[in-house]
Amino acid sequence: MQAKRGVDPPQDQDGDSARVAPRTIAAAEELAGIEFSAAEREQMAASLARQVAGLRARRGVALENGLAPATVFDPWLGRPSPPGGQRIRFEARGFPERPAADVDVAFASCREQGHWLRTGQLSSVELTRLYLERIRRLDPALSAVITVTEERAVAAAERADRELAAGVDRGPLHGLPWGAKDLFDTAGIRTTWGAEPFAERVPERDAEVVRRLDAAGAVLIAKTSLGALAYGDRWLDQRTNSPFKLDRGSSGSSAGSASGTAAGLFSFALGTETLGSIVSPSMRCGATGLRPTFGRVSRAGAMALCWSLDKVGPITRCVEDALVVLAAIEGSDERDVSTRAMPLEFDGARSVAGLRVGYDPRAFEGERADLIDAAALAALRECEVELVEYELPEAPYASLYTILNVEAAAAFEELTRENLDDQLTWQDEEAWPNSFRQSWFVPAIEMVQVDRLRRRIATQVEQSLGDLDAVLTPSFSGWWLVATNFTGHPCLCLRAGFEQDGQPRGVTLWGRLAGEGRLAELGRALEERLGVWRRQPELG
Amino acid sequence: MQAKRGVDPPQDQDGDSARVAPRTIAAAEELAGIEFSAAEREQMAASLARQVAGLRARRGVALENGLAPATVFDPWLGRPSPPGGQRIRFEARGFPERPAADVDVAFASCREQGHWLRTGQLSSVELTRLYLERIRRLDPALSAVITVTEERAVAAAERADRELAAGVDRGPLHGLPWGAKDLFDTAGIRTTWGAEPFAERVPERDAEVVRRLDAAGAVLIAKTSLGALAYGDRWLDQRTNSPFKLDRGSSGSSAGSASGTAAGLFSFALGTETLGSIVSPSMRCGATGLRPTFGRVSRAGAMALCWSLDKVGPITRCVEDALVVLAAIEGSDERDVSTRAMPLEFDGARSVAGLRVGYDPRAFEGERADLIDAAALAALRECEVELVEYELPEAPYASLYTILNVEAAAAFEELTRENLDDQLTWQDEEAWPNSFRQSWFVPAIEMVQVDRLRRRIATQVEQSLGDLDAVLTPSFSGWWLVATNFTGHPCLCLRAGFEQDGQPRGVTLWGRLAGEGRLAELGRALEERLGVWRRQPELG
Repeated sequence: MQAKRGVDPPQDQDGDSARVAPRTIAAAEELAGIEFSAAEREQMAASLARQVAGLRARRGVALENGLAPATVFDPWLGRPSPPGGQRIRFEARGFPERPAADVDVAFASCREQGHWLRTGQLSSVELTRLYLERIRRLDPALSAVITVTEERAVAAAERADRELAAGVDRGPLHGLPWGAKDLFDTAGIRTTWGAEPFAERVPERDAEVVRRLDAAGAVLIAKTSLGALAYGDRWLDQRTNSPFKLDRGSSGSSAGSASGTAAGLFSFALGTETLGSIVSPSMRCGATGLRPTFGRVSRAGAMALCWSLDKVGPITRCVEDALVVLAAIEGSDERDVSTRAMPLEFDGARSVAGLRVGYDPRAFEGERADLIDAAALAALRECEVELVEYELPEAPYASLYTILNVEAAAAFEELTRENLDDQLTWQDEEAWPNSFRQSWFVPAIEMVQVDRLRRRIATQVEQSLGDLDAVLTPSFSGWWLVATNFTGHPCLCLRAGFEQDGQPRGVTLWGRLAGEGRLAELGRALEERLGVWRRQPELG
Repeated sequence: MQAKRGVDPPQDQDGDSARVAPRTIAAAEELAGIEFSAAEREQMAASLARQVAGLRARRGVALENGLAPATVFDPWLGRPSPPGGQRIRFEARGFPERPAADVDVAFASCREQGHWLRTGQLSSVELTRLYLERIRRLDPALSAVITVTEERAVAAAERADRELAAGVDRGPLHGLPWGAKDLFDTAGIRTTWGAEPFAERVPERDAEVVRRLDAAGAVLIAKTSLGALAYGDRWLDQRTNSPFKLDRGSSGSSAGSASGTAAGLFSFALGTETLGSIVSPSMRCGATGLRPTFGRVSRAGAMALCWSLDKVGPITRCVEDALVVLAAIEGSDERDVSTRAMPLEFDGARSVAGLRVGYDPRAFEGERADLIDAAALAALRECEVELVEYELPEAPYASLYTILNVEAAAAFEELTRENLDDQLTWQDEEAWPNSFRQSWFVPAIEMVQVDRLRRRIATQVEQSLGDLDAVLTPSFSGWWLVATNFTGHPCLCLRAGFEQDGQPRGVTLWGRLAGEGRLAELGRALEERLGVWRRQPELG
């Protein structure tokens, strides 16, 4: 490094002779977690004033939400990643006839609905109208939908029916209505991010996943609720509720996608996760959530909360549907520099016997263990899966939160500076407005250090997994959710049973990088043995 | 984002009820460049205390210098990069006989020396002893060498001679003595980083570039000086001097590599650049510096100053030598996650006529223009290069310094915390110790924002270059050095003439990503027309 002085780049700072007072520096040290001597403070008094002037100058540059940092997280950590390409095979099996009751049509799987569409037992328009009616009737109790895209949906459904009639089949999602978390841009349709400052925001262009699902023939029917700016289940002036316990929040932030899917308001939905936003509401609402490997699905046109953490994934009612949706949206996209092609291999006809699945006995056995969790483990064992004792490495996972807090505060700097965050309903200490403000006192050096820690942890976790195909844990077990959101490993959460109060309970399968297909194979076998995925909430 | 509270990861923070005083927050705001209201300060008082406790907890984790952040800079910004592979062809031309005077052997090019080795006019041991003698005699005035690796050199030279005699030819650097900036690890040989706290540091393993040059048959003869921790030309208690003006510092930080090469102390050297550390001393000492595309050369085993900026490159006496050295050291390396294979294509026999080279008329014409610069432009024109007016885009380049300051301070956090930086000789306001301390007051959010700015700037610069093959500028012209160090574009600086006081003056060719071969073709044509590269300093 030479050029700081030696090579005289043009100077654009004024020759400010300002100095920062030593007691100001001392106070800032307290928040930065460092101590300097009086002489050290004296020496930096003038250069620090110039530094502050430089920071203020930077603020003059507007940075659009979609502009990602130049440095990018790669879950393979620089190692070669396997080549992309899909190899997907479903089990050849018969489908039931279309049920007599509309409600059973509404709660059917994507593959079943697709079969009825292709055999003339159902039309896309009929299914779309059925779901529109359910949304109108049931959503007031759920608050899962921010905007019903009826006009666009009916037009798409009519097109889907015309195409099928003409022999044009766009694949397994053709004609199926879906809900998009209201942070995916939809051209000409407001996309609110669940937050008051953006309540009237209308994008000009569809998000990449919306575009891909359009191309797959799916029918966008609803913009689903999300906790404001992708945190929690409170949005604008409402709260999204769990369909199985209407007096409980749905959890979030993919609140409406999970609640609405579990309530049979659409065939499937998309959510996003930064740190739990697919997994958490899926668990609470009894939906199936598939959080893909970081970089598998494009986030172009989705609200950026944390560029190095955000992931887009399906929320469905059964495991195979999640795999089908993932196959339709995955793949590299030059508009999202974190994406890359990676393999997606699923064989629904293959036995899972012999696959190696890690588990921590302490989480499943002993007095504190849950019966539903134990049953899930037993079900895997009955599938002749090889169960291997495994523990997540010990590591200072809590330090990684810095990355999330800081990226999020950077994404919404303008809200903090312009006090637009005062418009948000949720103003508690742990809500975004306070978190955004407080993050201004995290030193940049900390951000670099925890990013280095992230590399070490990601290396440790990947190595520790050895030759395991997956790991099974109860919901929200230990540091799993935090660890894998930062390492980029995928996970699949699915309904495993119901508590005595009727609340669904789920388990999670954590997978290898690009191992979503294997997760789906295991998840499907588990789901079949557990036999609870078809249970419908009582919504009247 | 859900899990901050909603999903209860294990809590490892104590239930500290401490609160930060509002006036402390207000003071810190001044340094962070933001303002909060009294109510906002009140709300964050407790959560901020927990944040500080979290930062203090992170410090307990030791982070080795070679541990890079998880996020990585990619100069292609996510676009596909061209496939790797070398296609190198030299002009078929005769070489002169070995000169009578040792000094002329010492100042010859690598290709000439290689010819004499292969034709029995010179042995590697003879060349090594010749350089060892010159180092002993001349280095006291230059201070370019920290450690002479005589034992290792003689053994390597003997092996090189034996191999050549046995018909084993490791390529163009076989048997040639070279100098390694003393931040490249050498097994069992102290590697000081030019800094007192590391003066007795002895690594166990060779840096990757040392290993590659060993494999290429080169003979490591000296660990060359660098400004302490890669900044400036002062190291331990000495200053490295320019061979053409011994009363002037060599500039830095690749001080000894540039000074020693220009003084004929070895056949070639390696340097590193974060922001000028190859270019600046090469210009000052009249050497040829080739700063490669970011990610072309492995930094494994090299002191990390800034993981997203550091680059390793050759310092030589002529352009073709730089290309030869680059070919020997480049290529992907799993120990440096920023590396990737990229093409290296050089055709020394091809005319440069018709290549498109940008230039800014304001820098070369008018009253303030330098005659040597103008002559360099004229020489390119005589080569029938197509000169195209070009200006670097306007952008807030100065904001990018934050990245350098913060990464460097993170790399040396321990020096700051343990006051080991007090041992460094250079303690001015602009020296590392104060810079490291002051950087603790840059908010992490600023780091994210300037990283986003870096993506925008890198995109703008690359797009603005259009179909240009390169751009010619006078030395240290405007923002070029800063811009390209952050975008990752390569450059080649070469001696263009001499000032009236005998000081060499250089020009710089800035290239396209992976375009080092094209730079070398242009640089070689320019060098031939300018006819000044063989001029030797008067060292007695």
